[in-house]
Amino acid sequence: MPDDRAIGVFDSGIGGLTVLAALARQLPEEPLIYLGDTARVPYGTRSPRTVLRYACQVADALVARDVKALVVACNTATTHALDALQQTGRELGIPVFGVIAPGVHEALARTRTGRVAVLGTDGTVRGGRYQALLAQAGAQPTAVACPLFVSLAEEGWHDTDVAELVAQRYLGDLSGGPDTVILGCTHYPLLRPAIARALPGVTLVDSATATARVVSQALAAQGLLATGPATATRFLVTDNLARFHRVGTRFLGAVPEPVELIDLVLGDGPFSERAA
Amino acid sequence: MPDDRAIGVFDSGIGGLTVLAALARQLPEEPLIYLGDTARVPYGTRSPRTVLRYACQVADALVARDVKALVVACNTATTHALDALQQTGRELGIPVFGVIAPGVHEALARTRTGRVAVLGTDGTVRGGRYQALLAQAGAQPTAVACPLFVSLAEEGWHDTDVAELVAQRYLGDLSGGPDTVILGCTHYPLLRPAIARALPGVTLVDSATATARVVSQALAAQGLLATGPATATRFLVTDNLARFHRVGTRFLGAVPEPVELIDLVLGDGPFSERAA
Repeated sequence: MPDDRAIGVFDSGIGGLTVLAALARQLPEEPLIYLGDTARVPYGTRSPRTVLRYACQVADALVARDVKALVVACNTATTHALDALQQTGRELGIPVFGVIAPGVHEALARTRTGRVAVLGTDGTVRGGRYQALLAQAGAQPTAVACPLFVSLAEEGWHDTDVAELVAQRYLGDLSGGPDTVILGCTHYPLLRPAIARALPGVTLVDSATATARVVSQALAAQGLLATGPATATRFLVTDNLARFHRVGTRFLGAVPEPVELIDLVLGDGPFSERAA
Repeated sequence: MPDDRAIGVFDSGIGGLTVLAALARQLPEEPLIYLGDTARVPYGTRSPRTVLRYACQVADALVARDVKALVVACNTATTHALDALQQTGRELGIPVFGVIAPGVHEALARTRTGRVAVLGTDGTVRGGRYQALLAQAGAQPTAVACPLFVSLAEEGWHDTDVAELVAQRYLGDLSGGPDTVILGCTHYPLLRPAIARALPGVTLVDSATATARVVSQALAAQGLLATGPATATRFLVTDNLARFHRVGTRFLGAVPEPVELIDLVLGDGPFSERAA
């Protein structure tokens, strides 16, 4: 029996729109709801405990809007909150997907030498989830925190001499000589040209497409796909509609609308309660 | 009668430590409490309504710790919240100081042509408080949002070729030919060398020192200065002690300790209630 409820996709802010775009391409029949926690973006510099708390509040807000599945379209939130979200999701019968495992599987499929580097936020790199999954599979991981890439993408400077110089500085002497590099932050696909020039000959893996494929396969296997045609994607943000519109267009490749401003009801819902 | 209670100083995160350092130099006898809202930093990209709400919650947390005065050591919070904070402060008998008026007065004292530019966050530039105060005094203001300066300072890249290039890009063709430029964000003093090279011959005004002077004079006039010697500064943050320690040292010029992690009690206090 098909399920016409929406897939809930969330991120700390705007970056997850790159994942949303991949989902919309892969699953054109599915209704989608996107929630960007723009009142508290970025998550990349927050502590694990705070990211977990914020992610649970956002998950609760989406479940209150009757979604059939959740996609954590944020690497930092996947790092610190996926396990807890999946546990509560199982109790509620709602599958929860992160962006890290799909990116890792894609990288493992493409590396020839087993030397894989991950680029991400401070939180993602320190959290070590990518490195652990890669090491478990026998690869030799390295990781580089590249926090300025986020600001460059949000400023619209991803295709400038500044982006080139920043990429050179972060990646110029990447240790271990990886043959494959995971773009472990949803902002980084915008910087792909600058990153590619700093790492000639290296394969770049963007987890957005890999994640969309995993979600598609899992929902199909569980009989949870919609019959279509999809209704328009709904966008929810916790702050600053104007900025979401302006900057989000660059990430989505289209204008994110209609956008609705919501207040998160703090600590009130099954995800928050079970993580407390 | 002297007043030995502390001065409460707050910022969205780490930048306000440049103001705290100026206060400690100017008022060595005064006990100081610093609160950085690191669970929700930055304020520069948030809406005015959200900044007001966050600033009131932070002010309430400091007043609950019995401060005698408040210094809003954040340009974006001063832009969107100072009027409301000062109104409630008057009712409570607690003077509230911002960083914008002191910087404007200093710039007006130093400009010869009346052409003054302000560099700040998106929120500060769009809020227009600097521009309004300058225009009221007969100056001809311009303003440039320089959001990447914040990331560069936090990454410790303020003294690199990247900082030079970013400063050139933001400021290279600053319209109107100002002779005086206000560093309208508490992060920007770290980039002073790069900014100075992008704007040769221009006077740079840093509001931290000017703010400390205004606070000192006002407290003396109201008989609110402490007898000293000062106790050690207390640092409070809402998230990520480790990062505050690591990055904050660069802004304060000393290690910010002891640091205590606090949770903000949302909407509970006179500032939040009166702004609601």
